[in-house]
Amino acid sequence: MLELEMKAKINKYTRGRIEQILRMAELLEEKTEEDIYFSSPIRDFKETDEALRIRYSGDKAILTYKGPKLDKISKSREEYEAFVSGDIEQILEKLGYKKVLNVRKNRKIYLYKEFKISIDDVEDLGEYLEIELKSDNIKDVERIENLFDDLFLESERRSYLELLLLKKK
Amino acid sequence: MLELEMKAKINKYTRGRIEQILRMAELLEEKTEEDIYFSSPIRDFKETDEALRIRYSGDKAILTYKGPKLDKISKSREEYEAFVSGDIEQILEKLGYKKVLNVRKNRKIYLYKEFKISIDDVEDLGEYLEIELKSDNIKDVERIENLFDDLFLESERRSYLELLLLKKK
Repeated sequence: MLELEMKAKINKYTRGRIEQILRMAELLEEKTEEDIYFSSPIRDFKETDEALRIRYSGDKAILTYKGPKLDKISKSREEYEAFVSGDIEQILEKLGYKKVLNVRKNRKIYLYKEFKISIDDVEDLGEYLEIELKSDNIKDVERIENLFDDLFLESERRSYLELLLLKKK
Repeated sequence: MLELEMKAKINKYTRGRIEQILRMAELLEEKTEEDIYFSSPIRDFKETDEALRIRYSGDKAILTYKGPKLDKISKSREEYEAFVSGDIEQILEKLGYKKVLNVRKNRKIYLYKEFKISIDDVEDLGEYLEIELKSDNIKDVERIENLFDDLFLESERRSYLELLLLKKK
């Protein structure tokens, strides 16, 4: 299963149109997420465009591996997830993975047609929108692109992790 | 927390004494376990005396990291465990870990005084006994050694994985 996804910064020019869409969408969930990103002992995940993270949300923890992006426009990539509990952070550290950064955000998730739209208020970064589609076909990313065009949104391909690391420099 | 542990092969000379002890012990649990062991992309776990495995038992899956043995006699070592579900095998494979071998066994777990005694019927290896004590102090392994002496048992420090790999050669 692929995670077809595009992201954009919400600003004063785009906020109005996004809010129009959200009025037609169904609010599914609002939650606080804290992500811990890890670096690999053998690969520079920044170079290979991979990511390994643990996401804590409520009483759940999810380990996620994200493969390299599959095209030049979207954030679509291969993704594997496992629910975890117990000593997972210690196990990763013993295997040589190191904590890079924590990303904290408040996330509102909406369902709009076949799309999952997340409105993220990210600590130290501000508000972003993500549109996601689950599919086995990378070509379906065009459907997200069309919605982006309708909303005059500009695709931000860098992850919150990258944006936060840039800001810290 | 340390896993203080010693293991011995059960044979016709030791079986009688072990059964005497088990008659005074309480049977806690009987279960089938299937362990998948992984090799690391950067370290030779055989050299570093570490192990990474997923244990499937019933509907549970546990990811375990075992550090190097802490002394020359027992199998005592640092151990971290996490319950896992979902794509954990795929995540490990994406990070470069490779499946080495599956170890299948029927395990009966007894409580005898402060010791946990496991009687393992291991596929392709036969019957083994393991005596375990949870403790923060490596010196407590002497209490297991004393019980081993009482039972005339000889310590087997090699893991089931190592024994199976030797047998396959």
